[in-house]
Amino acid sequence: MTTSTDRDQQLKKLCELIADIDCGMLTTTEEDGSLHSCPMSKNGEINSDGTLWFFIYRSSHKAAEIEHNQHVNVSFSSPDQQRYISLSGTAQLVQDRNKMQEKWQPKLQTWFPQGLDEPDIALLKVNINQADYWDSRSSFKPQVINL
Amino acid sequence: MTTSTDRDQQLKKLCELIADIDCGMLTTTEEDGSLHSCPMSKNGEINSDGTLWFFIYRSSHKAAEIEHNQHVNVSFSSPDQQRYISLSGTAQLVQDRNKMQEKWQPKLQTWFPQGLDEPDIALLKVNINQADYWDSRSSFKPQVINL
Repeated sequence: MTTSTDRDQQLKKLCELIADIDCGMLTTTEEDGSLHSCPMSKNGEINSDGTLWFFIYRSSHKAAEIEHNQHVNVSFSSPDQQRYISLSGTAQLVQDRNKMQEKWQPKLQTWFPQGLDEPDIALLKVNINQADYWDSRSSFKPQVINL
Repeated sequence: MTTSTDRDQQLKKLCELIADIDCGMLTTTEEDGSLHSCPMSKNGEINSDGTLWFFIYRSSHKAAEIEHNQHVNVSFSSPDQQRYISLSGTAQLVQDRNKMQEKWQPKLQTWFPQGLDEPDIALLKVNINQADYWDSRSSFKPQVINL
């Protein structure tokens, strides 16, 4: 049985693993079954409810893929530290202006030059179900965290 | 129309993009639709036929996923250079000893301590259909290469 303390510790571990990796690769499924990934700048930590948030263009092909198939993977790679993390979960678009203001960070202007004035901006909420990670300290044996 | 010269140039570009990134994250689909990724050390360049090869454990869960659903994505991340590459394609297991000898590299002993004497070893051949990449030189606008 996973207790709330276990879960808190697992989330803490996950946050530590991705703390210094800014961009994850978000993989989604096209209607024809093909898998595509793109870099997404994370804005903030994994939340206590096991969610990770990104900003996205609402009218983008990526958003359409997610509306068609909610399964996503977000992977984080730190080649220098030989650390690799896979987050499996489901995603949904959220268009809550208050939440956007809470989540916005100035560094995101690289991707959204107009910031929160961008009319096509939306949030992507990823609900993480499982995390797998590999690092040199664990001799590259996969470690699994179920959330 | 894509000529053979265009294709050669596109492949050359792709090889340059991933040349100094050793590990890619291979994403596959579980039977329940969930997406999982794991690090894979590339052994060699992308071939002139648009294929990329990895070694894998034949009895692994990852191999079973691929036999069930051949669609894969391999992403490469170089955070230091702000360069991100997504390769979309299909994969198949290959158990050709001559090909294994051709593709084997000593660095792979991190993952396969017994080397080619490992009885459970197999090759994974990824046929790349599309590559997308992002880097600071292209202002993070996605660049697409169709193979």
